[in-house]
This record gives sequence, C-alpha cells and structure tokens, in this order.
Amino acid sequence: MPSFSDIDCAHMARALQLAARGLYSAHPNPIVGCVIANNERVVGEGWHERAGEPHAEINALAAAGKDAEGGTAYVTLEPCAHHGKTPPCAEALLQAGISKVIVAMQDPFAQVAGRGLEMLRNAGVTTEVGLMQSAAESLNAGFIARVTRNRPMVRVKVAASIDGATAMKSGESQWITGPEARNDVQRLRARSGAIMTGIGTVLADDPSLNVRLKELTAAGLQPLRVVLDSRLRMPLSAGMLALPGETLVCCTGKHDHSRLNDAGAEVRSYAADGAAVDVGAVLTDLAQRGVNDVLVEAGPGVTGYLLQKELVDELVIYQAPHIMGSETRGMFQTSSWLALADRKRLQISDVRRIGGDTRITARVQN
Amino acid sequence: MPSFSDIDCAHMARALQLAARGLYSAHPNPIVGCVIANNERVVGEGWHERAGEPHAEINALAAAGKDAEGGTAYVTLEPCAHHGKTPPCAEALLQAGISKVIVAMQDPFAQVAGRGLEMLRNAGVTTEVGLMQSAAESLNAGFIARVTRNRPMVRVKVAASIDGATAMKSGESQWITGPEARNDVQRLRARSGAIMTGIGTVLADDPSLNVRLKELTAAGLQPLRVVLDSRLRMPLSAGMLALPGETLVCCTGKHDHSRLNDAGAEVRSYAADGAAVDVGAVLTDLAQRGVNDVLVEAGPGVTGYLLQKELVDELVIYQAPHIMGSETRGMFQTSSWLALADRKRLQISDVRRIGGDTRITARVQN
Repeated sequence: MPSFSDIDCAHMARALQLAARGLYSAHPNPIVGCVIANNERVVGEGWHERAGEPHAEINALAAAGKDAEGGTAYVTLEPCAHHGKTPPCAEALLQAGISKVIVAMQDPFAQVAGRGLEMLRNAGVTTEVGLMQSAAESLNAGFIARVTRNRPMVRVKVAASIDGATAMKSGESQWITGPEARNDVQRLRARSGAIMTGIGTVLADDPSLNVRLKELTAAGLQPLRVVLDSRLRMPLSAGMLALPGETLVCCTGKHDHSRLNDAGAEVRSYAADGAAVDVGAVLTDLAQRGVNDVLVEAGPGVTGYLLQKELVDELVIYQAPHIMGSETRGMFQTSSWLALADRKRLQISDVRRIGGDTRITARVQN
Repeated sequence: MPSFSDIDCAHMARALQLAARGLYSAHPNPIVGCVIANNERVVGEGWHERAGEPHAEINALAAAGKDAEGGTAYVTLEPCAHHGKTPPCAEALLQAGISKVIVAMQDPFAQVAGRGLEMLRNAGVTTEVGLMQSAAESLNAGFIARVTRNRPMVRVKVAASIDGATAMKSGESQWITGPEARNDVQRLRARSGAIMTGIGTVLADDPSLNVRLKELTAAGLQPLRVVLDSRLRMPLSAGMLALPGETLVCCTGKHDHSRLNDAGAEVRSYAADGAAVDVGAVLTDLAQRGVNDVLVEAGPGVTGYLLQKELVDELVIYQAPHIMGSETRGMFQTSSWLALADRKRLQISDVRRIGGDTRITARVQN
C-alpha cells in the first residue's frame, strides 16, 4: 500500500478541483486535473477543457515550464500512453523530467488501462496509484460506465412535492419547483451527453430539453435529445426539432422515417420489450456514440420502467416544500412491485437546499 | 426597545436549555427554565419538571440561596402572579431581593398575561421582555395554542418512502422506517397530551399508541389516546384498552357506550361533519381537558381531512431512503384539491438524519 503525505493530499484535492472545471465541456472525454509540484510549491496547474484540445498534463507542463523538472505530477486519472487526438501524456511527462507521478485512479479505458503507468515506471519514474480514488471515480462515473459496461451512467431527474407528486391528475405541473431548481437542472443537462424522455412527455409538454444558460453553452455542446417512441408518434412540429443540437427518435419495428428525417431528427429502430422500446439496447447504442451520461427527464411510465429494469444509476430529486395530496400523479409507475420487499433502496450521497427546494442525490442500489 | 448584552443572551440560552428538560413531564403546564445570575456568574438554575411541583423560578431561587439577592433572573416565560397549585413566582422573586427580571415572552395565559411583570415593576424591579422570544414561543407552541386559540397544537407524523408512499396497496407497511425513527416517534408521543388516530388504523393495525421507552415514562404520563370513530366500531378487544393511560373514543350521534366503558374506554359523541366526526369540536374538547399537543398517527383519510380543514400546525415526516413505486398508498387523501394552486405550502424548520432515515419537520402554512 502506498502511503501519502498531507502535501500529496492537498495537491490531489486541488487537481480534483481543476478536473471539475471540465464538467460541462470535456465529454465524451473524461474530466481530468493535474498539479505539478515541488513539495509544497505548485509550479503548474492544468485541466482538460474539451475533446481534441490538450490533456490536463500537457496544460500543467506548459504552465510549469522548466520548473517541472524533478517535480511530482498529481493527476486525477492515469496519463494516456496512446496516440489519440493528441500525443501521449506519459511521454510528455518523461520529456519534462518529472520524477514522480501520483494518480488517483488507473484509466479503465482499454487503450490505456495501466500502460501509461507502465511506460513511466519503465523509464524510472516513481508511480503511485489510489490517492482520493473514490472522489476521482465519482467525477468520471459516466465515463467509467461507458468504457467498462458499454452503457452510459443513467441519472433520473424528478421534480416532486414532499408527498411524492409530480403533477396533478389533470397533468398540471408547472411549476412544482422554483427557478433556482430549474436552473440547477440546466447544469445536470450540460454535463450529460444525452437527455432521454418519452413520447408521452413530448406530446403533453413539448419540452426543449436543451441547455439555455449562457455560462453552460460556452463549449458549444448540446446534449443529444433521445425520445423513446416505439410507435413513432413524434410530431414534426415538436419544438426540439428546431433547436440547435440533435434529436434521436427511438422506435421499434418498421416505419417511414423520411418526414421526421426532413424535420431534422434521426430515427432508429431498436429491439422491442413488449410494447416498449428496449431501453437497454438504446443505452448500448448511446455508449457507442460516446455518451457518458444520460439524463432522464420523463414521466412516471419511463422512469418506473427504468427502475424496474434496474437501469437507473442515480436519482436527483428536487423536492418542493409542498403537499400536493392524492389527486396527483406519482414519481414512478412500477406495476411489478407489489410487496414492500420489492422497493428499491437508495444510498443518499448529497442533500442540499436549492432556492426554496431540497435537492436529494442518491445512488440506486440495484 | 430593550437592548440585551451578550451575557444576557448566554444566560437566556441556558434558561431555554433548562426549560427543555421538562418537555416530557411538565404538560399540561408550559415548560419553563430560569437562570439567576450576577453578571457572568450563575448563582442558581431551575426548571419546571411537573405540574403541581415548584415552578422554574422557585427551583432556581432555592439553588441560589442568599446569592440571589441583587441578582438578575432570566426566565423563559413571564413569572406567574396568581395562586395556582403553587404560590406566585413574582412574589418569591421579590422576597429573594432580585433586582432585575428578563423574560423571553409574556405569559399568554389569561390569569397571568402581564400581571406577573406588573407586580415586579410596581415593587421597583427592572423588567425586560422579548429576549429570544421566538425560541421560547416555539418551546411552548402547544401551550400557547391551547390558551390563546382554545385548541391544542396539532402535529401530524408520517412515515413514508422518498416517493411519498406510506404502505403498499395491500396495506403492508411494517416497517418503512428504521428502529431509530420509531424510537424518535416515542419522543414525539411523550411530549404530547394526546395521540389521535382513526378507527381504520385501529381495525387494520391495532396500534398501542403509548410511550414505551423507559427514560420517557419516568414522569408516569401517558398521552390520552383519541380514536375518531363516527359509527362507534371500536372493538372491545383493541389492544390499547388494556394499556396504562386513557382512551377516548369519539363518535357522532347516539350509541350504547356501556360495553366500551366497561372495557375501559371513555366514549363521547361530537358534532358530525358529513360522515365524519367534526375534529374541530374534538380539538376544542381536548384543549378544555388540558391537552397542549396532539400527535396524529393515522392513515391518509384522517391526515388528509385535517389538512383540508386547515387543522394541521406541524408535519413531522420520517422519510425512508427507498422508492416504493406506484402500487402504494399515499400520505394524504385530499379529494378537494384538484388544481396545483390547492397545494399546501410548508415552512421547513428542521431536517435531520435519524438512523438511516431523514426527519423533516415543517409548519403548515394555512
């Protein structure tokens, strides 16, 4: 077991902070931060901002210049050893004369997977792995899911009253939560490679499902909009089709796609699961398209289906301090859960106040 | 406006802490704490433990002895001026030579209501009112409700999943929350003069509705059990009838009470509200019986009725980190709330972790 000093911890904590700056811009790449230091003294900082641009290590080396020589590099993810869109970072660290590399986690991506560390060790650089590993893993949970499970991380967002209602029976639901919570959802969208909804929500609410906050659209990324629509009822007039960003309509069986294609949508037929689209197949396709994180913003039918199929990794519940009562719609339609033992347990990872509402973030224990 | 020093604040904060020691034993009396001090130096502390026993001021004076002379008394509630079960505290403070009295709040009880302070001022004692008043009011919210509104404070307890379910459709609900939350409910019961439920809950679950934790029963108090039972279906075999403490069965119209009386229950007929008992009338009766706080532990029919009638002051929700889904019963049956505008707003006053569950305490904005 490597042992890490307080100074090591401080530098890695800073590297994790730097990594988080890429949250809204780096995907489909992992987010990575790097600090180059000589003992206490930080000589260079960097993070990965955007796919195709330099990795965190390269930015930190550039900032450090000659001072990198003999220093220690703290990187939140193992440096790459392969030639992708940029030359390998392990090579750059060697050339700069770095004497020690501490990484929070090994890269799970098959083309790296230990080879970056191996290249460094073979050249005589001391390497250590595992400092603040769980924090690093949680920053890149979506990337890890994609490269290890061939499936994006699935995050379901729900806005509900404290008694679990998401709409009145009439469908009236605007607005249950306040403007601060709705802005916060913009951040969830901006960190996601795709936003998934059901055709029922499209027909009822005609949602935009895009990123509108200026500070979040600077990277020019818009998540792929994914509509589950087994019978291909998607209206040509759907508002999202006219917005920047792409829309993928997921149906089953054979349909004429041409008019929706003309309206700007991609239509693809997937395996069926009863009357529904097999969402597992859609998720595999999304992973292959480079989507790390899928945000689900849908009605109780879709979200309940995903829960029952154990396809939900994380729930983000915006809970308004209201009682909406019994003449309402619930959060999840789960017709197969009849006994208390069928319930899903959650591991709550964060609870905080967002404006007048409470945001609860929880991992689903599948 | 009086101005208070940091020393004043520290002593009153301590007096509020002392008052809280009476939470499970003093009712139907208000809970009161008293600190007697000479500047920083505390010379006596006291609190009111139980009806019929000395008030907080008397206990603090006894602890202070001769040192009380020339001191300042910090009391969370105006000292009494009337001869009740004990002689008036204002008189005792004068006899001990106290030179200044600071109270958090005036006593709303008609037999005191400013007369204690007046007696002190007339004798040349400096008096000040309002230091930490809202904290003092919240400690005695039930007592204040009873003496000013002729109605106890109504606190509704609910155990639910994070998606608002209180039971499966089958009725299965044991247990949604963990043992720590259930112990915490014992504390809610012990501070209440009465526990209210509906006949449906009695018939389905045969609840005990008593205080079982030893540290809470030391005062020998058991809350009055109140069963809303318009058609008098209360079974003679109900478990609660065999337990220490009294049971009041609330019906409407004329019924033969004799067998239930023999089984140990009091039966009383109240005004009807449609097919239900008029709970407003029951609450007035409970206030007249000296009940400050009513804890409602009932099904969605009773709790929803109370919400719709604007009879709920506070909600205490124990939220388990589970998703129970759609084949469940909700928290409140509210058939008259059809539009989003009908929802009830809550003012959340406390959120904390109780074992694996979250306890949310909220005032209902009626």
